[in-house]
Amino acid sequence: MSSGKVTPISGFPEFLPAERIIEQHVLDTIRETFELHGFDSIETRAVEPIERLSDQGEDADKEIYAIHRLAEDLQGEAAATSHEARLGLHFDLTVPFARYVLENSGKLQFPFRRYQIQRVWRGERPQAGRYREFTQADIDIVDVGELPFHYEVEVPLVVADAFSRLPVGPFRIQVNNRKIPEGLYRGLGLDDVKTVLRIVDKLDKVGPDAIREMLVDAGATKEQANTCLALAEIRTPDTSFADRVRDLGVSHPTLEQGLAELTAVVDGAAQLAPGLLVADLRVARGLDYYTGTVYETQLLGAEDFGSICSGGRYDALASDGKRTYPGVGISIGVSRLLGKLIADGAVTTSRPTPTAVLVAVMDEEHRTESMRIAAALRARGLASLVSPTAAKLGKQIRFAERRGIPFVWFPGGEEADQVKDIRSGEQVAADAGQWTPADPADLRPVVRAAAAQASEGTRED
Amino acid sequence: MSSGKVTPISGFPEFLPAERIIEQHVLDTIRETFELHGFDSIETRAVEPIERLSDQGEDADKEIYAIHRLAEDLQGEAAATSHEARLGLHFDLTVPFARYVLENSGKLQFPFRRYQIQRVWRGERPQAGRYREFTQADIDIVDVGELPFHYEVEVPLVVADAFSRLPVGPFRIQVNNRKIPEGLYRGLGLDDVKTVLRIVDKLDKVGPDAIREMLVDAGATKEQANTCLALAEIRTPDTSFADRVRDLGVSHPTLEQGLAELTAVVDGAAQLAPGLLVADLRVARGLDYYTGTVYETQLLGAEDFGSICSGGRYDALASDGKRTYPGVGISIGVSRLLGKLIADGAVTTSRPTPTAVLVAVMDEEHRTESMRIAAALRARGLASLVSPTAAKLGKQIRFAERRGIPFVWFPGGEEADQVKDIRSGEQVAADAGQWTPADPADLRPVVRAAAAQASEGTRED
Repeated sequence: MSSGKVTPISGFPEFLPAERIIEQHVLDTIRETFELHGFDSIETRAVEPIERLSDQGEDADKEIYAIHRLAEDLQGEAAATSHEARLGLHFDLTVPFARYVLENSGKLQFPFRRYQIQRVWRGERPQAGRYREFTQADIDIVDVGELPFHYEVEVPLVVADAFSRLPVGPFRIQVNNRKIPEGLYRGLGLDDVKTVLRIVDKLDKVGPDAIREMLVDAGATKEQANTCLALAEIRTPDTSFADRVRDLGVSHPTLEQGLAELTAVVDGAAQLAPGLLVADLRVARGLDYYTGTVYETQLLGAEDFGSICSGGRYDALASDGKRTYPGVGISIGVSRLLGKLIADGAVTTSRPTPTAVLVAVMDEEHRTESMRIAAALRARGLASLVSPTAAKLGKQIRFAERRGIPFVWFPGGEEADQVKDIRSGEQVAADAGQWTPADPADLRPVVRAAAAQASEGTRED
Repeated sequence: MSSGKVTPISGFPEFLPAERIIEQHVLDTIRETFELHGFDSIETRAVEPIERLSDQGEDADKEIYAIHRLAEDLQGEAAATSHEARLGLHFDLTVPFARYVLENSGKLQFPFRRYQIQRVWRGERPQAGRYREFTQADIDIVDVGELPFHYEVEVPLVVADAFSRLPVGPFRIQVNNRKIPEGLYRGLGLDDVKTVLRIVDKLDKVGPDAIREMLVDAGATKEQANTCLALAEIRTPDTSFADRVRDLGVSHPTLEQGLAELTAVVDGAAQLAPGLLVADLRVARGLDYYTGTVYETQLLGAEDFGSICSGGRYDALASDGKRTYPGVGISIGVSRLLGKLIADGAVTTSRPTPTAVLVAVMDEEHRTESMRIAAALRARGLASLVSPTAAKLGKQIRFAERRGIPFVWFPGGEEADQVKDIRSGEQVAADAGQWTPADPADLRPVVRAAAAQASEGTRED
């Protein structure tokens, strides 16, 4: 029995029904967009062997939730001696996807385009925009051996299409190519690329002076450090970043390759979605598996909130020894985005329930008549509910009102039925086999951006 | 990097894209049905405090997966001394729902009707129809203090409506009321009701002779044991079970109440869905929280497979000390049902991908033209994909064929575009702003019951 005091668990958010309608709308829209763009759906199990999870980047271990059967505790040391692999909950959808591709490579068509919308878990310290359980919506395209470059242009366009169908407000996708900093650092003679990347990645947090100091501590000259910082400051809405990088006077084949690739991505996107991408040479992304183009996405005016959609190109995330499967993908942080939109009151639903009609019950002996009416309405797609009791009609109407159900249906018995729009008070004779709301928007809850003046506190309950 | 040999993990099934289309269809249909019947959607976090999970029935402990942060292992004994509650993955959706109701009782409208479709985890031994990770689809109705009885009639009708929209084949919902065996046992003088229930629940597995012996070992006389067995043999498609029970010559107020309630459920359902319910006095359900009506559902011809949809009435699953929240609910075992339908080849999809159109690329310089055409098709709801390479057209057509994409679009450049139905070979001039498939069934994959003669092996890959 659930009893006593119940408190939420930090980092594991849950929605009330009205908020869930907004979440469903966002998830449905993302799914529809991904399918329109030719991505197939898969889901993977929630668990992977821990070795597979802990092999991804230096900080991954700290984030993993391991699972074990409670019965093993009761059996003492059984867990340690078990021949079963130790399992953990996945912390993203890319690592499980890479494993899925290897496991099913003989049954998939390549290039394989999949979308995947699932929860993931990270044992991080919860804070604004960071949860321990959250939903991601990913697309990836993988091929065998070689992956055509044009997919690096396509992936952010798909996200832009999804966001254009959602009330997310203005946003900007920043794009970089990892070969640019890597090539520049190598061209400067700084061969410990990972260390330099890791230091420069802290620029937003600690500022240029601290970064310069850390780079010098790591063995760079002050001039080398300044060049690294100058690169990180370059941000252009067009391909002019390339000249600005070349002005830094460093040359390296990897740098040239990175500049050419980033130019192609920015150019290609500009033809189809002018203004969507900004070249931002500071973007690095934490996970070690990216090898080329990387993406981040900021809500304009809420840049401090962090990226709501990130991804990139990886050359070798999956390999079966004989073949590698390079890919490119991007992941929408659905929970992070939703958390902000709902907290800001930036999005509302026209009603807090899918139900359109409450069918009143005139007396308990005639409940079956009301159930038949509800069944007739449902058969034509009208979400309907039969009143819980044969209370006075005023009380039944208030029941609908409190739930935001717009219509109440009165069974007529020998007479014609009546239906009342309880917002306007208008009441008309109606036939359950034919009636439909005058405004099609009343069929289902409509989710839309809140008007500016309504932006404070729209939580419904 | 994902590399080397990859093998599935027993009990954690995953679908290929074509199978996933079938799963999505089933989940979408269930969701739509639940909303049509006036249920609001919620989802709960995947974890609960272990004490809350392990308080439910004698065998629950063995099934729970506990989780802990891997970083705690690295920190030695930190886990044991942590002030955070120990967490486990939920093993059903009823226990988390009861907790959600308590936590949000001030923000919900009662009677609260919710549906919830999520994965759950049980550390049981995997076998046919039993997984360690699987999806359930639940509806529940809870109220404060008292719950009107008519909901016990309504709940199986919702499931019947969902199944009528799905290719599940003929099924039967068995219904019982726990007060009947409880009252009969007490009327016989067998007051250790739980023990007797537990023994009789094994009837299908071990047969009547073994049950009789076990009951006698537990202190019953042979006559008492025979009466318990006689009760369990009663199964009627109508309310005649009540007379057959009374013929056993036992009387007890709880027994009478159970018979009256079960009569009302069977009668009420017969008015709206004749033949749907069968009174089956053997049905018990394992979990201890049920207190009245209980449901199980069998696929006809596959009764051994086990119940695909179960639930019941609970009087006291949730209580905050002052108030209790009685409820009634039912849970569709989506993974179990799907696993059987797919393994039997009982359901197929018209194609293994959502994509309707492949837009060919005449040469790489004109890829942007193909991307514009795809965007125009998507704007009108046609799922479209641009060819990965500007290969010879025959090769691009085979690319579509291998994926089951029905149409290939040829950009015309200066000329008119052409679109080819690659199944019929028919090719026509077309405008991406206007064209739509002649057969609306080609817009999206259509999932339907397989024809009887096609029932062997329809897995697509």
